[in-house]
Amino acid sequence: MSQPAAKAAAPKTAISPTRDEDFPLWYQEVIKQADMAENAPVRGCMIIKPYGYAVWENIQKHLDARIKDNDVQNAYFPLLIPIEYLSKEAEHIDGFAKECAVVTHHRLEKNADGKLVPAPSALLPEPFVIRPTSETIIGETLSGWIKSYRDLPYKLNQWCNVMRWELRPRIFLRTTEFLWQEGHNCFETADEARADSLKMLDVYREFMENCLALPVFAGEKTADERFPGAIATYTVEAMMQDGKALQAGTSHDLGQTFSKSANIKFQGRDGKEHFAHTTSWGVSTRTIGGLIMTHGDDDGVIMPPVVAPYPVVIVPFIRDDAGKSAVFEYCQKLAAQIKSAGFRVHLDLTEERSGNKIWKYVKSGVPLRVEVGEKEMAAGQVTHTRRDIGKDSKQTVPVAQFLAELPELLQSIQDGLLARATKFRDAHVFDVKSVAEIAEFYRAEKMGFVRADTAILNDPKFAEVRKEFSLSPRCMPFADNGQKVLIARSY
Amino acid sequence: MSQPAAKAAAPKTAISPTRDEDFPLWYQEVIKQADMAENAPVRGCMIIKPYGYAVWENIQKHLDARIKDNDVQNAYFPLLIPIEYLSKEAEHIDGFAKECAVVTHHRLEKNADGKLVPAPSALLPEPFVIRPTSETIIGETLSGWIKSYRDLPYKLNQWCNVMRWELRPRIFLRTTEFLWQEGHNCFETADEARADSLKMLDVYREFMENCLALPVFAGEKTADERFPGAIATYTVEAMMQDGKALQAGTSHDLGQTFSKSANIKFQGRDGKEHFAHTTSWGVSTRTIGGLIMTHGDDDGVIMPPVVAPYPVVIVPFIRDDAGKSAVFEYCQKLAAQIKSAGFRVHLDLTEERSGNKIWKYVKSGVPLRVEVGEKEMAAGQVTHTRRDIGKDSKQTVPVAQFLAELPELLQSIQDGLLARATKFRDAHVFDVKSVAEIAEFYRAEKMGFVRADTAILNDPKFAEVRKEFSLSPRCMPFADNGQKVLIARSY
Repeated sequence: MSQPAAKAAAPKTAISPTRDEDFPLWYQEVIKQADMAENAPVRGCMIIKPYGYAVWENIQKHLDARIKDNDVQNAYFPLLIPIEYLSKEAEHIDGFAKECAVVTHHRLEKNADGKLVPAPSALLPEPFVIRPTSETIIGETLSGWIKSYRDLPYKLNQWCNVMRWELRPRIFLRTTEFLWQEGHNCFETADEARADSLKMLDVYREFMENCLALPVFAGEKTADERFPGAIATYTVEAMMQDGKALQAGTSHDLGQTFSKSANIKFQGRDGKEHFAHTTSWGVSTRTIGGLIMTHGDDDGVIMPPVVAPYPVVIVPFIRDDAGKSAVFEYCQKLAAQIKSAGFRVHLDLTEERSGNKIWKYVKSGVPLRVEVGEKEMAAGQVTHTRRDIGKDSKQTVPVAQFLAELPELLQSIQDGLLARATKFRDAHVFDVKSVAEIAEFYRAEKMGFVRADTAILNDPKFAEVRKEFSLSPRCMPFADNGQKVLIARSY
Repeated sequence: MSQPAAKAAAPKTAISPTRDEDFPLWYQEVIKQADMAENAPVRGCMIIKPYGYAVWENIQKHLDARIKDNDVQNAYFPLLIPIEYLSKEAEHIDGFAKECAVVTHHRLEKNADGKLVPAPSALLPEPFVIRPTSETIIGETLSGWIKSYRDLPYKLNQWCNVMRWELRPRIFLRTTEFLWQEGHNCFETADEARADSLKMLDVYREFMENCLALPVFAGEKTADERFPGAIATYTVEAMMQDGKALQAGTSHDLGQTFSKSANIKFQGRDGKEHFAHTTSWGVSTRTIGGLIMTHGDDDGVIMPPVVAPYPVVIVPFIRDDAGKSAVFEYCQKLAAQIKSAGFRVHLDLTEERSGNKIWKYVKSGVPLRVEVGEKEMAAGQVTHTRRDIGKDSKQTVPVAQFLAELPELLQSIQDGLLARATKFRDAHVFDVKSVAEIAEFYRAEKMGFVRADTAILNDPKFAEVRKEFSLSPRCMPFADNGQKVLIARSY
């Protein structure tokens, strides 16, 4: 009897399931293994853990600097919005002011059973909603601040939490509470408002590419997909590794919709009263989900160095207690040198086994892993491995050379991630000529975006196919001069 | 008939009323004139305007660096807290979980009259409260994260908004919504928790003194004044110019109160299960109110350079259009040099009259005002004036000398503000020997704190006098080894 054929060993991956096996589960597992966030006891909300929050802090740092460079000032407006404000803008209510948290009482008390309940005597005369976005309250306020064309342009931004009650929440991507920045701006003319909304979208595009290594399609939303109340919505759309789209940031030309509902008027150069032209634009914690689904692999997250909590980790390899303190000291000196060179670095001196540490940093996607054992120490060297390439990139070099090459090395990882994601994306955009071809594409379970002439949106059969495959027009890319539309499934 | 005697002209001040005339109104007017914040349309809430928010950003920057230096990691927990969590800690509910905003619905809909109302079909099975503080939800979460003594200490901080329904709101000082940081930490032993709460209070003290130029009394709260659930509350108390106390930051040793209610257990070195020992500590936007009431004068705010939105402002003096562009260019070069030297600077190139600009920056308290006209330009000089001293400090010096002396000059303003506030405070602390002396002091409308032996708190007459003059024990200063107690009116 012959031996049974050896089963082909499945490649061992740190994350199970793999992306191919089950992309949504892979996503959840990656976040868990990288210790970035978890679901909160409050349905639809998340707890952002330190390693995930550090990414958000880096996003804030880089994006805030760009916002300020565009002469926008930060401020802070109240969390609660009077319902009366929402009522003024009909499209806005219908669009998304309905599914939101409503505050009706201002005190709890114990009932007859000793249970804490909202106190009937503390019923608010008018309930409030927790801001789903702040166009209304900021508009009402600006109507009191802006008097003359001399006060314009007026540009504000706030970093805050917002809530939209989500029926199908997904961590980072779609949560009832999320963190974001929202810019709100007033201009004298329609042209200036349009120019601002386009300029800020380009700020987002540049930020996504250079900081998050996310290639994005910048373009305009179709009329149906506009922000409620906007006359134009511009968007940056990224492609995830399952071929779905992620709206990574939007910028809205609101025309005079909100200035009319909130009464933002100014005395113009002609001495007459005019309504201002307003814009708003925002980027949220969902970009962290986008980063994970763009760069991650079957071993976990891969962090772009610019926003990585730490682009470099040092793992000491200890053979025995005798050599321990010398290796630790060598590593500490190295960490100090990396810091002096201007890079965040984490030195892991915990008792954990080195092998476990390596897996931990693979799963959490630290861009560059530095290993130091007695051998390296004796030779004045370090061994380093790129997370984006893996063991083929492993090399041992003298410390001085490592420090000299570090900036270039990290930039190369950053650039490599963007290039790889761009290549993937471009390989998954398909030109189609008819609604039938769109149906054929998705029926064949192909992955990616389809690109068609915008005329296709008016084809009566498009609505059916859109519904059947859960598609939506993502944007009309500027690169195609508004002649084409990208269509995809989306997050 | 003789001429009527000339009336003594009242000294002209930028702020009316003056501090002496009406301190609370002066406070409101100073904030308005400096354009820092205003009351929101949501009762008890505030809108923090760009100039006020910039102070908060600087506070965040300096305090966050100190928090991270103490190995605390930032994270983010949900805004909404299940009522069930509050119910677990009785003292905590009674203390302040009652006066808070309650979320009861997750959708609005139009009623028969077309009015937006909470949708009856969207009544939440269990209401949520908006966090008044996060001990409960963070405790519940940590109970899932902490398994072993190896996981300890575990130190977290979050920067966020919180709400406590205020019946008598005052901008910055006591608002229904405010911004703060809250640190939450778990330790293996009672000693470590106590040491952490004391260490972080000292971090606050050092931050208040060196960044906000606020002299504070650091000490322990009396048992009655503790945070609900704490076994010890430590505080830094500042004195405002009306002699009232402002609690500027607190640090709580929570013992095992919250670890028991939230079930934060770990396997100890002895192999047995133990409850963790926890601490929490926080500083909020009320410190901005403290800064205003400590340093401001009858001409407005005086900003300490470290947290000033910009420690230097440049005001060009233009005689005619001919010289304008040359002066502007000279100022722009100067601004660039100040920036290169590492200082924030604002160059005012608006059309406003120079005299009005000067008053604006006096009122908003820019530490150092630089004036440049054609005369200065021709001589390669600048004229500068310190806000804390005024016109007596005005001097004209060569640009190179100005740039060389700038760091020292700003430090001297920072130090001067602290020294002046310390002198004021120390001149307004009075030792008393009996409850009768306390009553005498406040009955005579004297201003400041009284200091007594702690035994006075047990005097049955103290409760009456406390009530009559709205006093409270502020703290038992460490400097007095817990033998003395400071008593005062407070914000």
